[in-house]
Parts: sequence; C-alpha cells; structure tokens
Amino acid sequence: MKEELLKEIKYDANGLVPTIVQDAETNEVLMLAYMNAESLHLTVETGETWFWSRSRGELWHKGVTSGNVQRVVEVRVYCDADTLLVLVNPAGAACHTGERSCFYRSLEKSF
Amino acid sequence: MKEELLKEIKYDANGLVPTIVQDAETNEVLMLAYMNAESLHLTVETGETWFWSRSRGELWHKGVTSGNVQRVVEVRVYCDADTLLVLVNPAGAACHTGERSCFYRSLEKSF
Repeated sequence: MKEELLKEIKYDANGLVPTIVQDAETNEVLMLAYMNAESLHLTVETGETWFWSRSRGELWHKGVTSGNVQRVVEVRVYCDADTLLVLVNPAGAACHTGERSCFYRSLEKSF
Repeated sequence: MKEELLKEIKYDANGLVPTIVQDAETNEVLMLAYMNAESLHLTVETGETWFWSRSRGELWHKGVTSGNVQRVVEVRVYCDADTLLVLVNPAGAACHTGERSCFYRSLEKSF
C-alpha cells in the first residue's frame, strides 16, 4: 500500500469517492459505486470490494448476500485523486438485475 | 437516440451525472467526468465528448484546446440511470498530465 498516495485521496462533502469497478480480465466496466475511507480500508484488508451504500446508509460488502463477490486485483487512483478504479475478478454478475455489467443499456450507438 | 431512456437519466442535486470514458478499442478506462443535460445533448449532437467542468463552472468540449478530442462510439446508461459510460476513440491522451488514462497511479496491486 502506498501510504502517501492513500493520504492524497480526496473524499467529497459526504466523505465519499466514486469508484469504478472493472473486470481485470475482460476490461469490461461492471459498475460504479461509492467508497468512504472505511470501505476502502476494508477492501484493501480483505481483498474483496466494500462500498458505502448511499441508499441504505451502511457499509456494503459487495456480493455477500448474492455470492457474487469481487476479488480485487488492483486499486488505481485518479490524477486528481477524487476517483478510484478497482480491477477485480468477479465471482458472478455485478448487477442486481443479473446482468454481468450494470451498463447493459445503450442510449446511442455507432455515431 | 432512445428518448425514453434519455428521460430516465437521473441527475444529482447539482444537475450532474458521473460519466466514465472508456477506450472503445482497448477497453482502457480513460477518465471520469461529469455531464449535465446540455453537455449530454452536445455529446450526442456532435459525436464528441462534452462535460460540465465543476472547477471552472462551464461547459467543456474535451480536447478542444489540446486537440485530444474523443469521438463517441456509444453511450451506455447505468441500471439505475444515475451514471453514464461513454465508449470513445480518443485522438490522444485523456489526462492533462499527458498520460493516456487518468488512472495511471496504482495504490495497491496483486492482492
């Protein structure tokens, strides 16, 4: 863990940082969720993704109920340190709909 | 353009939606920025990415000064419609540092 870089991370007014989750093998973007300092700590400690659920107002160990946990391969930090990118090996679907990725709907294609 | 899906998009209290930009060919995640309704409209109209710059408080045509515009291939919408994913063909570096991706720093690797 790069402690200096960890200290650089900029949380928003709610103590959260948007976190993109990407499949480490296929590079598919799976989801976007929000981490607070504690969920980032738990993610690094356990090697599985933890987030802060804004709707439920609680820590959320991704996949703990569905079994679709995400094993963390790498955590990357944005140039201005206000966004994270987590590369994972997912055990199953990322989306609550059962889709692999939460971005399964296309608004506009082939410009 | 899927008008029904467009109407579903949920902007936050500041009228913004976080937008992930991904390279359509390599699948590399390049950046995360914020769109308002007008920048999304301009993105779809022009086929190049437009964002809302939160620091400058103005519309931002990505690459208009650097030449590193991003040609849009597809716009995808999150399951709960509060995040966008834009697939692009970038003309150059996405990051102001000159790096291809803004996520060029690793906090922790190989868990």
